Amino acid sequence: MPAVHVINGPNLNLLGAREPAIYGGATLDDIKATLVERCAAAGVDLIFRQSNNEGDLVGWIQEAGRAKAPVILNAGALTHTSIAIHDAIKGSAANVIEVHLSNVYARESFRHHSFISPLARGVIVGFGPLSYLLAFEALFPAETRKT
Amino acid sequence: MPAVHVINGPNLNLLGAREPAIYGGATLDDIKATLVERCAAAGVDLIFRQSNNEGDLVGWIQEAGRAKAPVILNAGALTHTSIAIHDAIKGSAANVIEVHLSNVYARESFRHHSFISPLARGVIVGFGPLSYLLAFEALFPAETRKT
Amino acid sequence: MPAVHVINGPNLNLLGAREPAIYGGATLDDIKATLVERCAAAGVDLIFRQSNNEGDLVGWIQEAGRAKAPVILNAGALTHTSIAIHDAIKGSAANVIEVHLSNVYARESFRHHSFISPLARGVIVGFGPLSYLLAFEALFPAETRKT
Amino acid sequence: MPAVHVINGPNLNLLGAREPAIYGGATLDDIKATLVERCAAAGVDLIFRQSNNEGDLVGWIQEAGRAKAPVILNAGALTHTSIAIHDAIKGSAANVIEVHLSNVYARESFRHHSFISPLARGVIVGFGPLSYLLAFEALFPAETRKT
Amino acid sequence: MPAVHVINGPNLNLLGAREPAIYGGATLDDIKATLVERCAAAGVDLIFRQSNNEGDLVGWIQEAGRAKAPVILNAGALTHTSIAIHDAIKGSAANVIEVHLSNVYARESFRHHSFISPLARGVIVGFGPLSYLLAFEALFPAETRKT
Amino acid sequence: MPAVHVINGPNLNLLGAREPAIYGGATLDDIKATLVERCAAAGVDLIFRQSNNEGDLVGWIQEAGRAKAPVILNAGALTHTSIAIHDAIKGSAANVIEVHLSNVYARESFRHHSFISPLARGVIVGFGPLSYLLAFEALFPAETRKT
Amino acid sequence: MPAVHVINGPNLNLLGAREPAIYGGATLDDIKATLVERCAAAGVDLIFRQSNNEGDLVGWIQEAGRAKAPVILNAGALTHTSIAIHDAIKGSAANVIEVHLSNVYARESFRHHSFISPLARGVIVGFGPLSYLLAFEALFPAETRKT
Amino acid sequence: MPAVHVINGPNLNLLGAREPAIYGGATLDDIKATLVERCAAAGVDLIFRQSNNEGDLVGWIQEAGRAKAPVILNAGALTHTSIAIHDAIKGSAANVIEVHLSNVYARESFRHHSFISPLARGVIVGFGPLSYLLAFEALFPAETRKT
Amino acid sequence: MPAVHVINGPNLNLLGAREPAIYGGATLDDIKATLVERCAAAGVDLIFRQSNNEGDLVGWIQEAGRAKAPVILNAGALTHTSIAIHDAIKGSAANVIEVHLSNVYARESFRHHSFISPLARGVIVGFGPLSYLLAFEALFPAETRKT
Amino acid sequence: MPAVHVINGPNLNLLGAREPAIYGGATLDDIKATLVERCAAAGVDLIFRQSNNEGDLVGWIQEAGRAKAPVILNAGALTHTSIAIHDAIKGSAANVIEVHLSNVYARESFRHHSFISPLARGVIVGFGPLSYLLAFEALFPAETRKT
Amino acid sequence: MPAVHVINGPNLNLLGAREPAIYGGATLDDIKATLVERCAAAGVDLIFRQSNNEGDLVGWIQEAGRAKAPVILNAGALTHTSIAIHDAIKGSAANVIEVHLSNVYARESFRHHSFISPLARGVIVGFGPLSYLLAFEALFPAETRKT
Amino acid sequence: MPAVHVINGPNLNLLGAREPAIYGGATLDDIKATLVERCAAAGVDLIFRQSNNEGDLVGWIQEAGRAKAPVILNAGALTHTSIAIHDAIKGSAANVIEVHLSNVYARESFRHHSFISPLARGVIVGFGPLSYLLAFEALFPAETRKT
Repeated sequence: MPAVHVINGPNLNLLGAREPAIYGGATLDDIKATLVERCAAAGVDLIFRQSNNEGDLVGWIQEAGRAKAPVILNAGALTHTSIAIHDAIKGSAANVIEVHLSNVYARESFRHHSFISPLARGVIVGFGPLSYLLAFEALFPAETRKT
Repeated sequence: MPAVHVINGPNLNLLGAREPAIYGGATLDDIKATLVERCAAAGVDLIFRQSNNEGDLVGWIQEAGRAKAPVILNAGALTHTSIAIHDAIKGSAANVIEVHLSNVYARESFRHHSFISPLARGVIVGFGPLSYLLAFEALFPAETRKT
Repeated sequence: MPAVHVINGPNLNLLGAREPAIYGGATLDDIKATLVERCAAAGVDLIFRQSNNEGDLVGWIQEAGRAKAPVILNAGALTHTSIAIHDAIKGSAANVIEVHLSNVYARESFRHHSFISPLARGVIVGFGPLSYLLAFEALFPAETRKT
Repeated sequence: MPAVHVINGPNLNLLGAREPAIYGGATLDDIKATLVERCAAAGVDLIFRQSNNEGDLVGWIQEAGRAKAPVILNAGALTHTSIAIHDAIKGSAANVIEVHLSNVYARESFRHHSFISPLARGVIVGFGPLSYLLAFEALFPAETRKT
Repeated sequence: MPAVHVINGPNLNLLGAREPAIYGGATLDDIKATLVERCAAAGVDLIFRQSNNEGDLVGWIQEAGRAKAPVILNAGALTHTSIAIHDAIKGSAANVIEVHLSNVYARESFRHHSFISPLARGVIVGFGPLSYLLAFEALFPAETRKT
Repeated sequence: MPAVHVINGPNLNLLGAREPAIYGGATLDDIKATLVERCAAAGVDLIFRQSNNEGDLVGWIQEAGRAKAPVILNAGALTHTSIAIHDAIKGSAANVIEVHLSNVYARESFRHHSFISPLARGVIVGFGPLSYLLAFEALFPAETRKT
Repeated sequence: MPAVHVINGPNLNLLGAREPAIYGGATLDDIKATLVERCAAAGVDLIFRQSNNEGDLVGWIQEAGRAKAPVILNAGALTHTSIAIHDAIKGSAANVIEVHLSNVYARESFRHHSFISPLARGVIVGFGPLSYLLAFEALFPAETRKT
Repeated sequence: MPAVHVINGPNLNLLGAREPAIYGGATLDDIKATLVERCAAAGVDLIFRQSNNEGDLVGWIQEAGRAKAPVILNAGALTHTSIAIHDAIKGSAANVIEVHLSNVYARESFRHHSFISPLARGVIVGFGPLSYLLAFEALFPAETRKT
Repeated sequence: MPAVHVINGPNLNLLGAREPAIYGGATLDDIKATLVERCAAAGVDLIFRQSNNEGDLVGWIQEAGRAKAPVILNAGALTHTSIAIHDAIKGSAANVIEVHLSNVYARESFRHHSFISPLARGVIVGFGPLSYLLAFEALFPAETRKT
Repeated sequence: MPAVHVINGPNLNLLGAREPAIYGGATLDDIKATLVERCAAAGVDLIFRQSNNEGDLVGWIQEAGRAKAPVILNAGALTHTSIAIHDAIKGSAANVIEVHLSNVYARESFRHHSFISPLARGVIVGFGPLSYLLAFEALFPAETRKT
Repeated sequence: MPAVHVINGPNLNLLGAREPAIYGGATLDDIKATLVERCAAAGVDLIFRQSNNEGDLVGWIQEAGRAKAPVILNAGALTHTSIAIHDAIKGSAANVIEVHLSNVYARESFRHHSFISPLARGVIVGFGPLSYLLAFEALFPAETRKT
Repeated sequence: MPAVHVINGPNLNLLGAREPAIYGGATLDDIKATLVERCAAAGVDLIFRQSNNEGDLVGWIQEAGRAKAPVILNAGALTHTSIAIHDAIKGSAANVIEVHLSNVYARESFRHHSFISPLARGVIVGFGPLSYLLAFEALFPAETRKT
């Protein structure tokens, strides 16, 4: 079973420090820690990465696509501007769940369009760190794990 | 603890029969059955409704708001056109999670805007019937339930 | 052979009284009477309804779709605003001919777009009550009936 | 002399409870009570209604139009989306004064357009419950009443 | 009684060969043959023309206008671009019924606007060759012909 | 108690002469006369001005703002173009009721947007000279005056 | 001295018959007759043409450009749609005065843009047949002619 | 016979000095001098004015309208922004010919729309000072003057 | 092997004379001469045409489509406006390479959209006469010819 | 050496009183005082003006242009609406530095476009009164002054 | 003679694997191999690069510009979003031919605009790997190479 | 006191070589040299960087934000496209002054919008290298430095 790839885009390294009123106090390491635990329980490997570079995200998505591994993708600001990420998903047939911590639809209008959503298996928005866990749940539903 | 209100809008009664390529073969009763089970396990009541009438949805959201009950809302086509539902959520301070079965962002452009999203606690799109379960999970995270 | 469903939307009950310069002096009952006669001649049943409620139209279209019955649909103002009716047609695979009494393209620009047209078998606009008869003719061409 | 029809749209039943910072603390019953008093003083009957259903509003406007009765109309959210209400006013030649409690022009841009305004005798916006009284005053100017 | 002018625009000479999935297998000659028959039965003359030149269509519409003859007009692609044809109809006060074989509203957005529709007596769209016959029916209703 | 400032913009000096079909036959002096009477009855002073100059209106609004005096403002055409008037209201915290004689929403689309409305306490549109009186009523409700 | 080329586009052959309320009762021959007279007085030749075909206008403009002859151009409806005419003027460096009989700016919005105006020496709009004479005057000012 | 009113808007006092590549070397006084001469020849009075103030133009147009005097109006930049001038023309029923020295359609797009054109008797653009003379010619055609 | 059809639209007959700064000094005959030579070398026939009439281009494209012959198409200004040419390509399944001499993307925005491009096998823009030769190369790659 | 012209538009006279949260507590006189000091130190004269009238600003910019004097221009609300000021700068070739106290790009979208910026030597936005001093610095860099 | 720089943007490393229905089965190495051969035959060096990073492309274009070397640029998704690449071309005066494998004009509308095209010497779109060879041909026409 | 961070985006390394007509002849090193001198005089450290990579800029802004150091930011082309930079400023609460060498408002419309401006303390545009010095001046006003 291929590892779950969790890919985080620009400024997500600021989490915790960054605008806690919007994003909450949890850091990206906190989110990683919870996912590590979940993955251990589910018996799957985890690859957890963050970059401020579009090119890194493009490469990591291609890598996951080649590995036929599921992707939980929070591309941050690049969600709204990057056709290159769109093409990486399409070109590598990556299986992507798009997540966002904040409710992007309640914020500036330039955050309302996503180049990722039309290619995603599903989209989960606005639950804070829980968004990642719900995406994990979508990949490995509790029922399945129990058995 | 107030009951979970699951409110479904126009044409969701067609589920199963309706465009299975987009919506899958599960019926609305199937979804209800799974949620009944989940609610029983979590020890919460469930109010599960569907209507083709905007006015019914407005009233049910007001009712949930008054009861301070969480709402899982799939308003169907009204998602994109109903300011009345927007006002019902805002006016009754309802705690709403917006769900959609299909990936609305991969469909016609008139399905890309939602009058509900900016007021929702979170949005879950594209997972089929699993969308409802993830919303339930968001309301009652597994960890919490276990304890 | 399933009955022909003729479904009329908001304010069509005003016909005759309503803006005769635009809509002519015939009432909805006059239109029904002519269609009753035509249906009798063609040996098909007629279900003729009007409502000011979007939900009623959604339900009636679903009903016709389930019955695999042809629909002559004049959704009035809802033509231009109702995605729910669009979804009812699509979801129930209803066989719909869209009609309008007045020439909507010669009126306000908000009447120029129809959520029904892209799903209709055909569209007939601007002939007054004759629009309904032409739609009936399209369903049961004279040649066919003669034989 | 025909009764004054006061017609209220979706969510106005929430008044008082709903967003008091925007709408004030008065309930719809409070507004009705004041109008009852005014009507008594002016010697006219009052028909005061509220519904969350577009179809109800369409029907009530038609009814007022047939009765040649003046209408004070606060269609709430439907103001901005309902061509059916537009057509009801036009088709029944109803004599409508449009009112709003809050200053819709100071709120979201989707509240800036009204399908009712172009057909209204006049528009009164932003005075809270006083909006209804000013509309009444417009129908029955104080001078007239005194004599 | 003036002849019926049936005027066809660019590429309608391709009918039958052209995109049969959209336009069906009938040729323009097949359509003409059916209309010839109908006209004979109704006792009216038929002028049936096709051109790929905007100028020809402008001239033929002027000619029909001068003759006070009814026009069944399928201007093809020029429907969406030709103000000259719009002006020919308006300037010669031609009595035009606009027809289209395919459902233009289900195709590219540049086919959704027509410069002809606002000036047409009526518009019939999407019935294949039957569109022409329905237009003929609109000009000479069956009832009339029987007597 | 500060005086009521009634401020009129460009071309309102034409009233009576100007397009009586739209504006009625009353002159600006007639309106002033009625307000003089009302103010006398209510025991408040009246400052009634008209100018064709944007700068004058800006200055008068600043003056009213400084005096903490209520303003009845009919800025005429400047309503739709003057950010300077917008800023005068905002900058001087003037208490403004916006009035229009004609129903601007039933006229050209360039009259549908107002730079004043979002800053006004309320907006009264379409009642002819009565618009001013209703604004006065809004400032000094009849009940209050009686006592 | 090269001849003056007066080039008229689609439907100008209808002049006199066509919408006299907009275009007046003069025919294109009347306009030609007046210009013949003026040209004779000024001692210049006149080439006066009309066509409903864009290609003819393109060719005639090229011809005038090659001859370095001044052009009075009323391209009718093609004014608003023909980039080919734009290119003919630009490519042949034709010296063009654009004229219109009616006030195009007071008509439908699709008549407000001209592909000719940016390349014209000047534009004269709305004076009926006088528009042509003013264009002639612009080419041969009266002062000049007198001497 | 009322005087001809020639009204010039902002920055036309710069003529001659201002961007001679666009506007030529003639000053506003030069233009006035030529018109004085023409008026003398035609036996009409001339009122020739310039202002940088919108309010002045509004007043002068009202004055001309009251006097039923023809207006040659070059409103300069206000052409594109002033609804007040639009209203002055409409409200005083002024008989206006709009002129521009430069070809506004060959310049920035914000100069392509005029609030004056739809109300003007005619529009003359791009002939430099000759634009004024052609407007005069339109008011007093040479033929008329000769007799 | 069917002949190569090279089809040229409006104003391409001006080449050489027309705006040499943009289009270079070569004439259309020069381009034809080079292609004649290339075709001879490749052993294919050449049909080389130019017209200012949209209808001619529509007919020639239909002809090439019927002959299953490759088309090198420079539709000039009609590229941007002609849905009729779009339909001719689609309806006759013509195999079209779109070429332009100048870099249309570096010119006016109305030259940036092409109704031909979405249906073309490929698009070659901006190389002057070389554009035609590259298109020929695309049809008959050098490698192939050598063998 | 010509004097520095500092020109202030509508409502800047409110400074200090006006929205201190946005504009700070300094008055226009305070700004003038600081500039007087700077000018004295730099040995240049200062002309410091404010008006609520567009016409005044147009005239003052023309005056500065004629004097070849540098202009520090804060046109306030007219920045966003006045083509007349744009033309005054262009027509008089004035050397303008545009300044704003508040960060206009962080405010309403109608403040994001400036008719002045494209003609300015430079633009300085958002530094409060310091904006004026930085503009002065740009005209007379400290290094220069020291020497 | 400077080397030919062939610069490939994001996801072109996926070629062959990526969406073969759109891009064909050739890999980027296949394309490179063919170009190596062509360059050898033409006696020019080849620099062939690919990156998923916008910054790399900016740098390589600058490098080619400094070397006065011709560039064949397929910027992939960055074509449509990168002003930085636009500026690199403009700032280094690079001689760029833009190529695309697929017909971008037949795909999503966000692929129809290119920030590169207006600065390119020419654009070649839709010929698969042949697009690169045609670009090479444009740089080194066969005729030239033969001699 | 934290160092001043001067951060330069894509293509600013080309300065001096790049389009001197727009950007002048100074190189980025020249600008750095001047700032080094100023910083020495003011007693603050300077961190001066340039990159063509969005990710680098994001990281450097985060770094400055963490250090609570003031930022002079010329993001070049990324100004107009990078929401990631916007988020870096917002997320790290960086104190940013936005500068541009050229007057972006006098250039292509895609340079008129900045994702940085709404978050900047101030914006300085169009003064060439002086823009950086004015930004420095804004951070350390001369008065302050003197003392």
